[in-house]
Amino acid sequence: MPYYFEDLTLDLSAEYRKTLTETDVVLFAGLTGDNNPMHIDAEFAGQTRFGERIVHGMLTASFLSTVIGMHLPGPGCIYMAQNIRFVKPVHIGETVRATARVVELWPDKQRAKLITECFVRDTVVLTGDALVWVPKRPVA
Amino acid sequence: MPYYFEDLTLDLSAEYRKTLTETDVVLFAGLTGDNNPMHIDAEFAGQTRFGERIVHGMLTASFLSTVIGMHLPGPGCIYMAQNIRFVKPVHIGETVRATARVVELWPDKQRAKLITECFVRDTVVLTGDALVWVPKRPVA
Repeated sequence: MPYYFEDLTLDLSAEYRKTLTETDVVLFAGLTGDNNPMHIDAEFAGQTRFGERIVHGMLTASFLSTVIGMHLPGPGCIYMAQNIRFVKPVHIGETVRATARVVELWPDKQRAKLITECFVRDTVVLTGDALVWVPKRPVA
Repeated sequence: MPYYFEDLTLDLSAEYRKTLTETDVVLFAGLTGDNNPMHIDAEFAGQTRFGERIVHGMLTASFLSTVIGMHLPGPGCIYMAQNIRFVKPVHIGETVRATARVVELWPDKQRAKLITECFVRDTVVLTGDALVWVPKRPVA
């Protein structure tokens, strides 16, 4: 357990980085059934405003779950809500940095709000916030 | 292209159904790096309030992208935002029905708001809303 509720402080942050490969897009399409041609049809995607296949937005968003479930607050927390705004497309081959930062704490309810953002280099590609319930440190 | 903006009407809806298997959870964990023991450690999960491993919430949420990207409005639309509230856990073996329904249309901006919900049998497990940009019918 990386963090119990008592360990959380404002501005505490964590991140997860991953390069989005063609394999990731193919596997995510198969797993979710989201075979939108924007993601799996290079010829279709080439004629859109994006010019080539783009990564599923929900795949990029899923790395926020990785940051929250693995690092901040980490295992034991309960993911209550996630708001997402897809700001820019992510292209195959780009490296995403998914980040979470504590911005509000409600001790009576053991809840924390985190600002969640994904970047490609210095550009925000996805933004939003998350709400989690965090266990208290067990009494010894 | 299932729907151009002109084809959309209030209350139009679509759905996607999928049984969540252990394979899905294992693949999603590998793909996203979200190896939270709640999803991949049967002994850890057995000692939590859920009593067993549960499906990643963001995997269930991803089926909303499937409904939106494939069916309503379908290929060509741009996914702008998705708000998610995780209401109940989904257990391995359960069948999820992900639904989207048009609730608001902004013709000047070609935008539509959809209420998005996931069900296991008759129980809501996930709720929220989505915002999409939808192409107009091309002039012949």
